[in-house]
Amino acid sequence: MQAASRIAPCLHETPVLTSRSIDQLVGAPVYFKCEMFQRTGSFKARGALNAVGQTGAEVVATHSSGNHGAALAYAAREAGKQAIVVVPDDASAAKVANIERYEAETVGCGPTQDDRESTLAEVVRRTGAEVVHPYDDYRVIAGQGTVMLELSRQVPSIAEVWLPVGGGGLASGCVVAAPDGVRVVGAEPELAGDAALGLELGERQPQMPPRTVADGLRAALGRRNFGILQSYGLDIHLVSESEIIDAQQLLMSCLKVIVEPSSAVPFAALLKTPSDRPVGVVLTGGNWRADGY
Amino acid sequence: MQAASRIAPCLHETPVLTSRSIDQLVGAPVYFKCEMFQRTGSFKARGALNAVGQTGAEVVATHSSGNHGAALAYAAREAGKQAIVVVPDDASAAKVANIERYEAETVGCGPTQDDRESTLAEVVRRTGAEVVHPYDDYRVIAGQGTVMLELSRQVPSIAEVWLPVGGGGLASGCVVAAPDGVRVVGAEPELAGDAALGLELGERQPQMPPRTVADGLRAALGRRNFGILQSYGLDIHLVSESEIIDAQQLLMSCLKVIVEPSSAVPFAALLKTPSDRPVGVVLTGGNWRADGY
Repeated sequence: MQAASRIAPCLHETPVLTSRSIDQLVGAPVYFKCEMFQRTGSFKARGALNAVGQTGAEVVATHSSGNHGAALAYAAREAGKQAIVVVPDDASAAKVANIERYEAETVGCGPTQDDRESTLAEVVRRTGAEVVHPYDDYRVIAGQGTVMLELSRQVPSIAEVWLPVGGGGLASGCVVAAPDGVRVVGAEPELAGDAALGLELGERQPQMPPRTVADGLRAALGRRNFGILQSYGLDIHLVSESEIIDAQQLLMSCLKVIVEPSSAVPFAALLKTPSDRPVGVVLTGGNWRADGY
Repeated sequence: MQAASRIAPCLHETPVLTSRSIDQLVGAPVYFKCEMFQRTGSFKARGALNAVGQTGAEVVATHSSGNHGAALAYAAREAGKQAIVVVPDDASAAKVANIERYEAETVGCGPTQDDRESTLAEVVRRTGAEVVHPYDDYRVIAGQGTVMLELSRQVPSIAEVWLPVGGGGLASGCVVAAPDGVRVVGAEPELAGDAALGLELGERQPQMPPRTVADGLRAALGRRNFGILQSYGLDIHLVSESEIIDAQQLLMSCLKVIVEPSSAVPFAALLKTPSDRPVGVVLTGGNWRADGY
């Protein structure tokens, strides 16, 4: 896949971790793909690098609850370009600090999808920046798909890959990149279950009120992402807020890794749906600071 | 080295993690050997497996603030033997739970070295168990040394390896196993600085009052360990309690890993002593639960 070789020089091949205690809980071997160890702290570095690597623009811009913002800032800096990131005012301090570390300009906005998009449009008018959407962009989708390429090479026996669904960048990328015989399974917070509902109804749904603790999954499914996931027939499991927190604590005590709530969503779903085949779980990011989430 | 091949089947080769932010802080590339991902949650599985693999006894016993206890319980279970672990009443709930998970019998005792040893002697009288000391045992020392063998193979460019000194099992094992051109550097909490003082005075010192937050490092340096470290001339840096906590928080936010305070001690020392050569840091364990350390 072209994306993989394009972005490899600026990325870690992240390790896969396992836990006997967790295998016993699930009833099958579980392989955790640790993207919280990825450059910028999440898998989003993959899509951002792939998109920035294919544009001629000198200034790139986006809206992001945080991880894509840091990823685009990093990708732009590596390519000698300028990045401008529209950040909801309710994004965690950890995520904003992570964006500014890579020398991007940040612009605040309200918590809804409309707030993000109108503010971003303003930035583009002002600067002529090229928008790199967090997920509704085929270059970003191809970049996120390299998670699947890497994981299926690291663990050839894998039969399923469980991952969280927010805007759908990771899910659609992994669906496209999945080798034969590897099934992708999605998971969403009940409080942000627009993708599950939209795929069930056959019609993309608006964003739900941004209330879930899994702040990386509040966005609505993107148009391109919806199309890919609909044609694939993605199965999406829903989990409650307390299931997300419990799964996060379990991951931290058994795997000894820091995961943000969004990262714990597919594992929370897997715990309710024991599998008997070797299963991969993508841990997407680990935003954390001593002062909390 | 014999120990390495003896114990390999029951161990993970733990990954080495890096962080650009940390490299910038230190001024040199820093390679973190992640033993919190080791079976039983710490490097102590190495020494315990090596000792149990060489004994004919059916029952093994030890005293431990936790990690060695879990390691011996695990090693005994893997070998089809029974383990009995004497645990100070002030050991963290996480550590005790970790011991009992591997089906060992636990026996409580007071917080001092004398309390541990008298209670263990009682257990031996009662059961005829063979004692596997947490650190003052050449089989254990050889097992812990495999951390150095693995790390220097994973990162051939490494010039120094910084590690915490408690009873001295890890330090003496790594000193013995260090390839030419790799220098071992020790670190201790000021509140448990018996090893630094003993090596300076040329005489082994008694345990200090068990007050440091780095509860894995409260024990006094062992006799065999003192001998090895004295002949090597180990340099030991001291760090304060707040330096330990700050280093622990920094590791968690930059590396996205869970480390117990004892694990953060050598990194806390390194932060005060910038190096300009590629340096390895052993992260020894990650006892953690949602209810705190």
